Amino acid sequence: MNFMEKLTNAIRKNKSLLCVGLDPDPELMPDKVSVFEFNRAIIDATADLVCAYKPNLAFYEALGNEGLEALKRTVDYIPADIPVIGDAKRGDIGNTGERYATALFDDLKFDAVTISPYMGRDSVEPFLTRPGKGVFLLALTSNPGSADFQRVRVAGRPLYEHVVKLSGTWASGIGYVVGATHPGELKRVRALAPRAPLLIPGVGSQGGDLEAAVRAGVTAFGDLAVINASRSILYASSGRDFARSARTEAKRMQDAMERVRAAL
Amino acid sequence: MNFMEKLTNAIRKNKSLLCVGLDPDPELMPDKVSVFEFNRAIIDATADLVCAYKPNLAFYEALGNEGLEALKRTVDYIPADIPVIGDAKRGDIGNTGERYATALFDDLKFDAVTISPYMGRDSVEPFLTRPGKGVFLLALTSNPGSADFQRVRVAGRPLYEHVVKLSGTWASGIGYVVGATHPGELKRVRALAPRAPLLIPGVGSQGGDLEAAVRAGVTAFGDLAVINASRSILYASSGRDFARSARTEAKRMQDAMERVRAAL
Repeated sequence: MNFMEKLTNAIRKNKSLLCVGLDPDPELMPDKVSVFEFNRAIIDATADLVCAYKPNLAFYEALGNEGLEALKRTVDYIPADIPVIGDAKRGDIGNTGERYATALFDDLKFDAVTISPYMGRDSVEPFLTRPGKGVFLLALTSNPGSADFQRVRVAGRPLYEHVVKLSGTWASGIGYVVGATHPGELKRVRALAPRAPLLIPGVGSQGGDLEAAVRAGVTAFGDLAVINASRSILYASSGRDFARSARTEAKRMQDAMERVRAAL
Repeated sequence: MNFMEKLTNAIRKNKSLLCVGLDPDPELMPDKVSVFEFNRAIIDATADLVCAYKPNLAFYEALGNEGLEALKRTVDYIPADIPVIGDAKRGDIGNTGERYATALFDDLKFDAVTISPYMGRDSVEPFLTRPGKGVFLLALTSNPGSADFQRVRVAGRPLYEHVVKLSGTWASGIGYVVGATHPGELKRVRALAPRAPLLIPGVGSQGGDLEAAVRAGVTAFGDLAVINASRSILYASSGRDFARSARTEAKRMQDAMERVRAAL
């Protein structure tokens, strides 16, 4: 099944736009729980509440071989009807980009990936040409540094809008990453790309606007949003009850989002 | 020894600005030679002709665990007095960027890395705060897609110049990636950042301008350039004599660059 179908089905089945970011941090995890055990417990506790999972590769790469082994076991463990987005933010020249596509789609088996647009079209194409796979290009990220380059004015509009506009001419179906920490800009991106899936981080620990994220996600063309929280769910408790606390927090967010959806 | 000292010493000792990109491609490598054996033979054949080696992570990640194991063995095998630049092009929000810094500097043991600037200052800082390590920010890359976003005009100058100017205020010692396929722009970047080390890819298979690369590298402040060729050296021959052919091509490039240097 292709990424968009899988995502749409999971949103419908679980009545949820919530994506849980699987970013295991040994300093915040309970003692004596391995990365895979931690992820497995989080997945068991939340699989009926989410539309996707999003492991960020940095957290696994930082742990060396064991981390990457845990990542593979995690992707294998996630129920087949829930899409997995590899948060990789890669981007390299064509022949090298092909290698990253192989690593992310064939070896790590992600359904979709995040990609940096800085190197332009030929750096993004190796990911667009994979049938059934999804791509989210970084547009306006949730962090303070997003102001440095993503917001510079280019012919009267901010660079991130130019990224959305230009990349929209390369292929259909490209998704975009826009932080929930920027609700006004999220609305603008949705207006520029009414049919694009949006990956919206920043609603948990980073304090982003949940209501604006839901409003941007729901369109006349479908529920095209993946609203991500990582730390606020994973580390809702630092004790042995971490999975139960993660479920409580995930459920709270899912309910809050569904209330916004119901009122639209 | 810190990266810049190591680089300066290697340039002096080997009389070379040449960096060999260690991008092993099993389809182009001779049959029955493993990735590590291939790299080892290339290193043995070129270690007295280079100022640095630059493995691109994509080529190893595409081969899964075995690829990453070969990468680690390769970094271990490179003589301790030759710096290793991890071509990673990473970039993520602060707490995640820290993980990439751990992966690249502590686990993979690179002396320097390439980083994408798109996410701004807090995405670059985790790499800048590592004592003795080097960072090359992508400015104007060697590929056709560099025109899409890197060249857009921002307040009268192209974005890549804005990247160089703004990042220059964050810390001293930041290096930049500028493709040898853009000789005029390389000169502009050198003028904007007279003390910055430049990583200049694109002189081999991509057809970049070797003379312009050397001119940009040599400054009143030192020989601050790493001029990279990958495919033209690694795959100079597809037969069992690949290492000898690699040496011949590396020597040819080193000689050509030294002739330019001598005439400056």
